[in-house]
Amino acid sequence: MIRKILIANRGEIAVRIIRACREMGIETVAVYSEADRDSLHAQVADEAVCIGPAKSKDSYLNMGNIISAAVLTGAQAIHPGFGFLSENSVFARMCEECNIKFIGPSPSTIEMMGDKSKAREVMIDAGVPVVPGTEGIIETLEEAYNSAENIGYPVMVKASAGGGGKGIRIVHKREELDKAYETAKSEAKVNFGDDRIYMEKFIENPRHIEFQILGDEHGNIIHLGERDCSLQRRNQKVLEEAPSVVLDKDLRDRMGNAAVKAAKAVDYKNAGTIEFLLDKNGRFYFMEMNTRIQVEHPVTEMVTGIDLVKEQIKIAAGEKLSITQESLEIRGHAIECRINAENPHRNFAPSPGKIEFLFMPGGNGVRIDSAVYNGYVIPPHYDSMIAKLIVFGKTREEAIEKMKRALWEFTIDGIDNNIDFQLEILNHPKFIDGKFDTGFINKEIIK
Amino acid sequence: MIRKILIANRGEIAVRIIRACREMGIETVAVYSEADRDSLHAQVADEAVCIGPAKSKDSYLNMGNIISAAVLTGAQAIHPGFGFLSENSVFARMCEECNIKFIGPSPSTIEMMGDKSKAREVMIDAGVPVVPGTEGIIETLEEAYNSAENIGYPVMVKASAGGGGKGIRIVHKREELDKAYETAKSEAKVNFGDDRIYMEKFIENPRHIEFQILGDEHGNIIHLGERDCSLQRRNQKVLEEAPSVVLDKDLRDRMGNAAVKAAKAVDYKNAGTIEFLLDKNGRFYFMEMNTRIQVEHPVTEMVTGIDLVKEQIKIAAGEKLSITQESLEIRGHAIECRINAENPHRNFAPSPGKIEFLFMPGGNGVRIDSAVYNGYVIPPHYDSMIAKLIVFGKTREEAIEKMKRALWEFTIDGIDNNIDFQLEILNHPKFIDGKFDTGFINKEIIK
Repeated sequence: MIRKILIANRGEIAVRIIRACREMGIETVAVYSEADRDSLHAQVADEAVCIGPAKSKDSYLNMGNIISAAVLTGAQAIHPGFGFLSENSVFARMCEECNIKFIGPSPSTIEMMGDKSKAREVMIDAGVPVVPGTEGIIETLEEAYNSAENIGYPVMVKASAGGGGKGIRIVHKREELDKAYETAKSEAKVNFGDDRIYMEKFIENPRHIEFQILGDEHGNIIHLGERDCSLQRRNQKVLEEAPSVVLDKDLRDRMGNAAVKAAKAVDYKNAGTIEFLLDKNGRFYFMEMNTRIQVEHPVTEMVTGIDLVKEQIKIAAGEKLSITQESLEIRGHAIECRINAENPHRNFAPSPGKIEFLFMPGGNGVRIDSAVYNGYVIPPHYDSMIAKLIVFGKTREEAIEKMKRALWEFTIDGIDNNIDFQLEILNHPKFIDGKFDTGFINKEIIK
Repeated sequence: MIRKILIANRGEIAVRIIRACREMGIETVAVYSEADRDSLHAQVADEAVCIGPAKSKDSYLNMGNIISAAVLTGAQAIHPGFGFLSENSVFARMCEECNIKFIGPSPSTIEMMGDKSKAREVMIDAGVPVVPGTEGIIETLEEAYNSAENIGYPVMVKASAGGGGKGIRIVHKREELDKAYETAKSEAKVNFGDDRIYMEKFIENPRHIEFQILGDEHGNIIHLGERDCSLQRRNQKVLEEAPSVVLDKDLRDRMGNAAVKAAKAVDYKNAGTIEFLLDKNGRFYFMEMNTRIQVEHPVTEMVTGIDLVKEQIKIAAGEKLSITQESLEIRGHAIECRINAENPHRNFAPSPGKIEFLFMPGGNGVRIDSAVYNGYVIPPHYDSMIAKLIVFGKTREEAIEKMKRALWEFTIDGIDNNIDFQLEILNHPKFIDGKFDTGFINKEIIK
């Protein structure tokens, strides 16, 4: 059994993990940077350890300090949350070497899925459909021209070590390729310290459909249905829902089976996500696997009744999955809106600062995962996401109306936020009709 | 269709009803007293009308002003919530006469169930088990002595017009009867303007088990399972849960059928509750019917997935019930804690005043129905209940742990509250074991 867990993260996901631990009777250790002394996650944990200055690289990415904090406090496991060190195989391996259970898949799985071109190869071998593209790394511009001809424009030039939408360029015609190739390479170098590049067919106007996976340490792997995350701005998800309006039972089964096959191909353990692109003709392609809990995991929790963070911890403790694929039931409809401290009218510039007054909605079917409180000062150093508003309704229609009601009540004074922006999406006829793709926000909302 | 509803109430239930309306696309009119100008319910409604001074009798019980507000704003229906005018048949009849739909049962049903000795008679005729007692009103002390002998001590002397635990006296032996008879009578006179008294066997250490009823205007009546409301202080419920640990399927079916039979006996329409006492031998007795939505309705919503306030509105609009008894599914476990502005160490004295800092818990499976916010000043004129904290877990065990976690996070500075008192209950081994009755709080917590 795990008796104490260190949470190597901050903000709402740290609070969310601490809550799960507390409900399971597991002690918690928060880590915090000097900028996060007043943060909620440091206050709700049983213990809190300062791990360094404000800058992420000195604190939340400081592996040595985090491992030390775990050793000093006697934590038997580390939950990495998402972002920061959650998909860092070096860190996962360090934990293993220090006899601390990393709550996530094995370092080698993280490594394999973190290398996007390698992941592609694994999926091709496993028979999981992937976007047509190069079989491995592109070594030269010459090779890039040839590959693009073979695949057919438009194509995407992508960083092999990529993630979060960085190191990606779309190329519509031959003349654009050289510049895209160079900028993707240099962006990859800067962001990931790795300038390897590969190429894929650019799927126009796809839906982003991802499947939640759970795998235990006894070889059982199931999926928990899909999330539709097509509403994105600059490859950052804005609003997510489950189930997706475009999946019927047959397609859900086929995609779910492909997701399980993909996870089995890498002997996946713990919670993970298989992201697919779904084109207008109902063809789907493996995009990538995220080897961690996702920001949008609550929508799956709402429609399945399964607490994913608790499952992660139970899996790490060696327990078998308590559910089978056959016993899984999806009911109702859930939507999540990410509430960010940002100004949509100033190109979504982050808006840190003091929350002068906060009112969060409540009532039937409303869930808030947040790390802010009245008078809290949002530090400028981190992500602008300050809360997740999740609603559950019997139908998608009810969920939409509930979300509109909740957003309407939500009040955050003192900083800019994207509540009205989210309301614009929810009031848009095409969103209501379920007729949207990953280009929706740019085409219909921002314009 | 109903397009606009006036909510003849305040506080969290008013907010809860307004939320349901908003999600249904129905406009809302709040009414508020002069003391409630800054109240949340007046702020979240589409319109708000001041109906008089702080004192309830001048505002929330002022039928004329409320009806006028409905007429002036064009509200087609009035939702009375609970308390105040919710079980006032005169008010329901006034609504009817003014062509305003009263969201609740017919005036005659309210009248019949409001008269506790009459309700007893109706249930006896319908074959619903009642507590052994007098067949009607006791006219003289002489008669009281005879009845008590026949029933057998201990007995309860009860006000026929009673409710909320007022006008009730327990008599353990003959020598106590004369005083109990006189005080119950005078208390009934003072509180209800009606000193009629009847007598029942006093059931020792019962569980308070109530069944939620829904009836439409087409004659369909179903129950939605039980709530265990045994945790009471001075006949006021403190913590409620669904389902009850002491009901197995057979007993649930028998009690549920009796509840439906009881509701059918009065041709019940809209939401209502049949309250039973359950004795140590598994025998149950009809206690009373509440002809309104209950404070504790959310626990039923959590385990059935049915929004009771929306159902009330749909029923009032003439819709048929969307569910049948057979399609009803109870899943998981829900607990509600009433959060009151009161001081448990000073005999639960109300603690109105300014909320200097408020933090309400959130996360998976946590629901808050509340009407307070940071900086809100709780007026001294009304009920001390300021929020309801409701949790849902797959099992009772999980729900308890979740409630403890949520209560632990809940912070209300500036006023006294009963959060620690609720935690004492949740941490008590007998509560955890499910071994409690209506005497539990006095015996085990307050001592």
